Amino acid sequence: MPNRLTIDEIHALAKSILMKHGCSDTQADAVANTVASAERDHAHSHGLFRMPGYVESLTNNSVDGNAVPEIKELTPAIIQIDGKNCFAPLAFNAGKDALVAATKTIGIAAMPMVRVHHFSALWKETEMFAEEGLIAMAFTAYMPKVAPAGGSKPFYGTNPMSFAWPRKDALPMVFDQASAAMAMGDVMLAERDGHTLPDGVGITADGSPTNDPSEVLKGSILPFGGYKGASIALMIELLVGPLIGETTSPETHRRYGNVGGPPQGGELIIAMDPSKFGNAAAWSDDAEVLFDDLHAIEGTRLPGARRQSHRSGALADGVEVNDALMETLEKLAA
Amino acid sequence: MPNRLTIDEIHALAKSILMKHGCSDTQADAVANTVASAERDHAHSHGLFRMPGYVESLTNNSVDGNAVPEIKELTPAIIQIDGKNCFAPLAFNAGKDALVAATKTIGIAAMPMVRVHHFSALWKETEMFAEEGLIAMAFTAYMPKVAPAGGSKPFYGTNPMSFAWPRKDALPMVFDQASAAMAMGDVMLAERDGHTLPDGVGITADGSPTNDPSEVLKGSILPFGGYKGASIALMIELLVGPLIGETTSPETHRRYGNVGGPPQGGELIIAMDPSKFGNAAAWSDDAEVLFDDLHAIEGTRLPGARRQSHRSGALADGVEVNDALMETLEKLAA
Repeated sequence: MPNRLTIDEIHALAKSILMKHGCSDTQADAVANTVASAERDHAHSHGLFRMPGYVESLTNNSVDGNAVPEIKELTPAIIQIDGKNCFAPLAFNAGKDALVAATKTIGIAAMPMVRVHHFSALWKETEMFAEEGLIAMAFTAYMPKVAPAGGSKPFYGTNPMSFAWPRKDALPMVFDQASAAMAMGDVMLAERDGHTLPDGVGITADGSPTNDPSEVLKGSILPFGGYKGASIALMIELLVGPLIGETTSPETHRRYGNVGGPPQGGELIIAMDPSKFGNAAAWSDDAEVLFDDLHAIEGTRLPGARRQSHRSGALADGVEVNDALMETLEKLAA
Repeated sequence: MPNRLTIDEIHALAKSILMKHGCSDTQADAVANTVASAERDHAHSHGLFRMPGYVESLTNNSVDGNAVPEIKELTPAIIQIDGKNCFAPLAFNAGKDALVAATKTIGIAAMPMVRVHHFSALWKETEMFAEEGLIAMAFTAYMPKVAPAGGSKPFYGTNPMSFAWPRKDALPMVFDQASAAMAMGDVMLAERDGHTLPDGVGITADGSPTNDPSEVLKGSILPFGGYKGASIALMIELLVGPLIGETTSPETHRRYGNVGGPPQGGELIIAMDPSKFGNAAAWSDDAEVLFDDLHAIEGTRLPGARRQSHRSGALADGVEVNDALMETLEKLAA
């Protein structure tokens, strides 16, 4: 008996669970938007599947459900958000308009977010800037899960990087990719569903290659693309840790151990206004030529296109939630 | 009989060849610095090996040896350099101080470079910002050489991305990596030296896997790390093409065909001042803790460390230049 929920029902369910466990209306709404958007795009590993983790971090008090983020203009181009231990979507919402305004004035601006708990995908955030006509990059770190180049112990977080490009007559082009060979959420889903992992995704605690997601969760995920993916993971650690005054993945682990739910950490967003870089009249058309050139090659599509392709169907018909998860959610809501 | 040249001799040789073929003193000096730095770091594929290409683009007039780049402040944070068809190092030198000043004032700034011919490594440029205490990212595109995700025709350039992080008591941490599985220069070197390529580097013109560098040069290089490397390649196309008003790799090919030497194109540098992101007192120490954490894992090193390890030896003892290349250089200098 499948449970089919509309995106609005998913939003309402997520919001009510969060409020029941101590989130303010505003914060619950921000997180529920993120959860509902993930389900809408069939990004299930960042959707309702994460609700128990959100709840755990509220009940163990690592996240403050009533936090009110603070905005500080460090320079006219650097808008710092102190999340005061909130979930990241609330901090993001608090700073977004200021970052948009700074970017539209100066052409490039950054939003370092500190004391936030990031537990979702970055694409939702970069896409929101693209909907304002801006280019955005976002980075965040996590906890040691990924082996460094040459090493066989967990060191880097799965450290995603997202990039969004605004389009005039289409959804923005948005990618969001872990610097791990596979996103943590997907390894967790594989474990839950009893699937094996492809070669090259992970190693055991002893450093041996394995296809077993449970062994990888006890060992290390590998970086994507070998040492090059590891370099990107290191860059992300520096950008969302030392640069902005937050913890790196190894430091997060030292300070908070294996806390339930998302640990405290940092995030960095860099936004650019494409009308300010010397090609105001043609940047959009020039990009469409590139996209057309790409589509002219058999077998290609834009990054993110598959995810976005689920959107209209899910908005019209809802999405299915499996029985085990539905049962969990009902318990959390009860 | 090995030819051992000091780094100063390499600089003088490169500069004299460039001036002989029509470069101004200033432009020849800028390019020779790049060539000599590459040799100093044993990055031979970006060193003297490229001299015939530099000369070809001067003799076929695709590069203007007497160009004088123009600086335009598009916003207080966006410093555009029109290279007027110069080699990129000259344009870089023209804009560097302005970008440093903007970054130190506003915290983040960008330098779009248009009408430049980039034929070298980006690490030299990002490292120069790190020497000023700044973080820098740099991107450039090229000509269709790399197959897109899902496709089997050349589409992306090898599209390198470089990142540099300043360190107080050590050389900056700098990586510079093609979004191709292997840098073009290294494929060219493998062909010259009769080496085969590792699996996963390239495909033939028919789309079949091959280890033959000549076949890859006629076919496509693959992106590093599969679709994730391809996403980064696409991001770079957008940043150094449509965003700044320059050509993407496919557009470069349409306009200039297989021109000898480096084609005209764009480059984007983004610089950040780590003292302006909310962690002025501790950013450097916090990063050193991360680097120490990394070094504590057996088998690891920082990206770029191997390249930098050649530096002091090369400065003291010079580097060897093989006979065939030396003969070519002597002809170009004669």
